[in-house]
Amino acid sequence: MTLPSEPVPLAPSARLALPLVDQAPTTERADAARNRAKLLEAAAALIKDQGAEHLTMDALAAAACVGKGTVFRRFGDRLGLLFAVLDRTESEFQQAFMFGPAPLGPGADPVARLNAFGGAALRHLHANMDVYLESDQQASARYNAAPRRVRARHVTMLLRAAGVEGDLELLTGALLSTLDPAPVHHMLTERGHTVERLEAGWCDLVARITHRC
Amino acid sequence: MTLPSEPVPLAPSARLALPLVDQAPTTERADAARNRAKLLEAAAALIKDQGAEHLTMDALAAAACVGKGTVFRRFGDRLGLLFAVLDRTESEFQQAFMFGPAPLGPGADPVARLNAFGGAALRHLHANMDVYLESDQQASARYNAAPRRVRARHVTMLLRAAGVEGDLELLTGALLSTLDPAPVHHMLTERGHTVERLEAGWCDLVARITHRC
Repeated sequence: MTLPSEPVPLAPSARLALPLVDQAPTTERADAARNRAKLLEAAAALIKDQGAEHLTMDALAAAACVGKGTVFRRFGDRLGLLFAVLDRTESEFQQAFMFGPAPLGPGADPVARLNAFGGAALRHLHANMDVYLESDQQASARYNAAPRRVRARHVTMLLRAAGVEGDLELLTGALLSTLDPAPVHHMLTERGHTVERLEAGWCDLVARITHRC
Repeated sequence: MTLPSEPVPLAPSARLALPLVDQAPTTERADAARNRAKLLEAAAALIKDQGAEHLTMDALAAAACVGKGTVFRRFGDRLGLLFAVLDRTESEFQQAFMFGPAPLGPGADPVARLNAFGGAALRHLHANMDVYLESDQQASARYNAAPRRVRARHVTMLLRAAGVEGDLELLTGALLSTLDPAPVHHMLTERGHTVERLEAGWCDLVARITHRC
């Protein structure tokens, strides 16, 4: 049983596991860590001034007055750089929901904390939207694709026919997201679940949303 | 009020709206349509033999015995080709849930149809996983990223503290998916929703999942 106040390992151990971000923070010498922090500050300034779509390896090297090779050695590629930038932002959010004041932090009723978590995550995302989208470009196209709209219309129609009241568009989105390729693949491979277990999970979610539980 | 048996516009209108797929099907002459169909058959054969990661513009041109320029003119780029392949598969699934036998198709209780829809979508995805993943590569990395795991651990802990029983890992995934950059961005821009509405939607979903509704 994990208690709300139990300390959860934060960054840098969280940082170490981020894909494509080099594992330097714990082993590099102090000057290398400082250089990395300086590069990330320059990257944040570049994003603030020009938007995340202008954050390239070249632009960062020029802005930070270092060679292009230094930027590539440090971050691997542009996606690695974007992950490193996001990791900095996400760490602040993690501090808030794990150790910050209630109701987001420990001390409040769990449902109040869940409610606060979603709101804070949405505002955090809204404030950093262009960086998140830059690291996730192809996925965006999916939500506009015709097949997605056909599925959404179908599920909304069935929710309405089942007598569900509320924001059917958002409930439909929540249901459909559980059928997306990336999370399903993750569950089947990394987590070792079966298609049958995912089907049972879908039916459980349908039951909760339609109140037939 | 949309009734389950009401005809919903399928492909080709659905096909026309697919991003990056050229809009040829309704206007091109019969021989061009045949050539397109032949290319998609060759692409499907290539995927079946070698996997979606080997479906490139070059490989398709060679397999279909046409010039590389023809493949580029037809599909724009590799992502456009992948969308066209997926569109073919998705159309069959659409036929099944809109016009096929119950409980997936019309005629059954809406909750039974919702249950059948998720199961069929999961099996459809499982059978075509590599094509879906190829068109959605960067998103996959997100599910393994440390920040995602920290968020998941936090939400699972709160669900457990709230006394929720069931498959907490899958319920956590369903909740977290509604906070992902791509769907949130889609709701804020394409659908014109506010962050406040999304927050209310999150709290509604929390209430349904935790049974405090």
